[in-house]
Amino acid sequence: MTIHDNNDTICAISTPHGVGGIAVIRISGRDAIAVVDRLWKGRRLSESASHTAHLGTIVDDNSEILDQAVATVFRGPNSFTGEDVVELSVHGSKWIQRETINLLVRTGCRIADAGEFTRRAFASGRLDLAEAEAVADVIASSSRAAHRVAMRQMRGDFSGRLNSLREQLLELASLLELELDFSEEDVEFASRRKLLDLADEIHSVVTRLAATFATGSALKEGIPVSIVGATNVGKSTLLNRLLHDDRAIVSDIHGTTRDVIEDTMEIGGVLFRLIDTAGLRSTTDTIEALGIERTINKLKNASIILWMVDATAGQENAAKSWAEIESHLSPEQHLIAVVNKIDAGNIDITSLLPEGTTVIKLSARNGEGISALEQALVNASGTGDLSHNDIMVTNARHYEALTHAANAIARAIDGLKAGLSGDFIAQDIRETLHYLGEITGTITTPDILATIFSRFCIGK
Amino acid sequence: MTIHDNNDTICAISTPHGVGGIAVIRISGRDAIAVVDRLWKGRRLSESASHTAHLGTIVDDNSEILDQAVATVFRGPNSFTGEDVVELSVHGSKWIQRETINLLVRTGCRIADAGEFTRRAFASGRLDLAEAEAVADVIASSSRAAHRVAMRQMRGDFSGRLNSLREQLLELASLLELELDFSEEDVEFASRRKLLDLADEIHSVVTRLAATFATGSALKEGIPVSIVGATNVGKSTLLNRLLHDDRAIVSDIHGTTRDVIEDTMEIGGVLFRLIDTAGLRSTTDTIEALGIERTINKLKNASIILWMVDATAGQENAAKSWAEIESHLSPEQHLIAVVNKIDAGNIDITSLLPEGTTVIKLSARNGEGISALEQALVNASGTGDLSHNDIMVTNARHYEALTHAANAIARAIDGLKAGLSGDFIAQDIRETLHYLGEITGTITTPDILATIFSRFCIGK
Repeated sequence: MTIHDNNDTICAISTPHGVGGIAVIRISGRDAIAVVDRLWKGRRLSESASHTAHLGTIVDDNSEILDQAVATVFRGPNSFTGEDVVELSVHGSKWIQRETINLLVRTGCRIADAGEFTRRAFASGRLDLAEAEAVADVIASSSRAAHRVAMRQMRGDFSGRLNSLREQLLELASLLELELDFSEEDVEFASRRKLLDLADEIHSVVTRLAATFATGSALKEGIPVSIVGATNVGKSTLLNRLLHDDRAIVSDIHGTTRDVIEDTMEIGGVLFRLIDTAGLRSTTDTIEALGIERTINKLKNASIILWMVDATAGQENAAKSWAEIESHLSPEQHLIAVVNKIDAGNIDITSLLPEGTTVIKLSARNGEGISALEQALVNASGTGDLSHNDIMVTNARHYEALTHAANAIARAIDGLKAGLSGDFIAQDIRETLHYLGEITGTITTPDILATIFSRFCIGK
Repeated sequence: MTIHDNNDTICAISTPHGVGGIAVIRISGRDAIAVVDRLWKGRRLSESASHTAHLGTIVDDNSEILDQAVATVFRGPNSFTGEDVVELSVHGSKWIQRETINLLVRTGCRIADAGEFTRRAFASGRLDLAEAEAVADVIASSSRAAHRVAMRQMRGDFSGRLNSLREQLLELASLLELELDFSEEDVEFASRRKLLDLADEIHSVVTRLAATFATGSALKEGIPVSIVGATNVGKSTLLNRLLHDDRAIVSDIHGTTRDVIEDTMEIGGVLFRLIDTAGLRSTTDTIEALGIERTINKLKNASIILWMVDATAGQENAAKSWAEIESHLSPEQHLIAVVNKIDAGNIDITSLLPEGTTVIKLSARNGEGISALEQALVNASGTGDLSHNDIMVTNARHYEALTHAANAIARAIDGLKAGLSGDFIAQDIRETLHYLGEITGTITTPDILATIFSRFCIGK
């Protein structure tokens, strides 16, 4: 991927694709205001103050009116990108959107690369790298928890924490480097005690942050939940009931969501990803055995297992079902046992299960007990004990850098404890600084930037 | 459909559904600014000037930050609806869009009905009815020609023409009504000569406008074109070539368009709707005969027939194909004869065809002659001789009202010519005024309004 010139004036449709009441076309760059003025009939935007909106018409090269529109002027550096920005709010027909972009290109703009507006915000220092990456996460968020984490990162909480550690380390490191210049004289500018304390603190923060990645990425993608059990115990009915409650919020928008990300649902602000499984039972049929093998693999990838039995099918069937599934569970997985059809029968399965297993009795058909199950899911998600102010790592790139930083600082700690000479320790500390700097973009390469911004949508 | 109270403050997502860089949520009504201020952290919007944009954060009922956003304030009457309007430009995640709407509803807004913003613009006199209807047409436009017609209507050209006629008629009509009050005295306040001249002019304008409906609605929906001919003459290749050229503009947006309205394409600014047909040939197979019957029906609905022959298949096959199709053509249809595969052969079919039929020789495979065909299609569309300033009727409601008005004014003309007494003529003129007024909304009923605005999308 090539990175285009930052001196170009760029344009893109920033609103979702499709037809709507209005669409917003964003133009950013040195000539943004001048370019729009060339196709604008109305008050001259170059004479307008920043943060003002103007009604006018967009006129094409043949002096034909393309649209009535509102142009809002944001003068750099007080704009999203830090450059001069114009936002054109046009009527949301595809034809108008397309023709306006074509006209802008003919008038001297280039169509923006994916994420280029945000990349310019980073280049102009309006956002650091972790904050910029969070913009994409904010846009992709589909639950309260994922949104909260991304929003906190975008607002700089995560970067702030890392930067403050990095700055302290940098200060001590520079003293350490100074020692190396005077290595003949055997002086110690950098207090080994202070350095060790700081290294310990950094190690503890960095490993704690890295440890949040499992939960953080599950929050973002949806916590995987497998519903398992014999056929006809009511898995589909339960699935439908859970999904139905989710859909009831604002039908108009929500209906669309379901088309795209099927089988995920938000409960209590947490996104769950439901994984369908075929029934588990002993078989001699090879093809069926293959299907069951797949079921077991899916089961292994789930964080939460909903094992479901039918209260009307008797104790014996429940025991048989449990025997089939038991060996496939791992201790890291949360097991929730669900007894369905309690409107028509009752069984006691606690004796089958490991001590302390949550058992929910419900009727998927009439809805009884469903909210208890939802609460159990939220509890099992491990997000309940996150305080509102916890920082979480949701980005694989950050996780990798944090892991590298943790290893490097651990080596530095070992070196300090072993009384190694300054140059060995300095090497490990430089490496720690490097990895911490990679996260916020203090240290970066064009390749990293290209990779990061290519996952953005165009127009952001 | 109920029409909600105009005193409510309404909100809706105005940008297309889905995920994008940003989305715009529009709030309109008496309390628009106050409502947003309640969830806004940043500069107080109620103290901000009209047409100014402000960066701030949206904070929910739990004091949690929902998003960083830009709020633009438009104070009535200088806003789209004529009321106070706030536009919130938020990050374009579905979650943020949904939660912001939910929060606005909790803070005192109602979700807008389809088209309610435009209906309020009509109610406050910012737009007349024909102009308001054109807003929906502008948004739905998918070609230059359809867009131009809708834009002109939205900007009031159509309404202006009708209103000026209506006002002149109204003046004469009131003199006529005055006569009726003095009916005992046999006076003539309204000059019969002037009235007849005006009635003639109105009749001519109104019938001319009504006559544009066929072309106007075809422009909007796409002019129906049937490609017919024996199998293997290259119909699909031609179709692909025509569609390909159309797609080349801005791939990103255009790809989407094609998913939705398949088989339409814009050539020279005009939208064509291509109708696929099965091959035509004599058959004894009942099922194939049914297929051919359908082909013939589709053929009858097309405005333009592309009859296609294969230059390498010989004169005789062309004559046979012509014999099969000839009887199904009607004189109102435009016939374009296409000789394909001229890179590999040649035949002369002019002798078969009615005099003056356009014959295009081309190679669908290598592209030779395609632009000549495109020009022939635009010529046959009947839109070539429309001047840029022509007004066209594209709306069935307007067409119906114009037809009623034409009939009523024709009766008035007959009455005037026959020297009928003023009360008869006054009745016909009142009816003419009624129908003309219905178009621009001078005369209207809640039912008409509800029907009109229900075809809008929500958020406009």
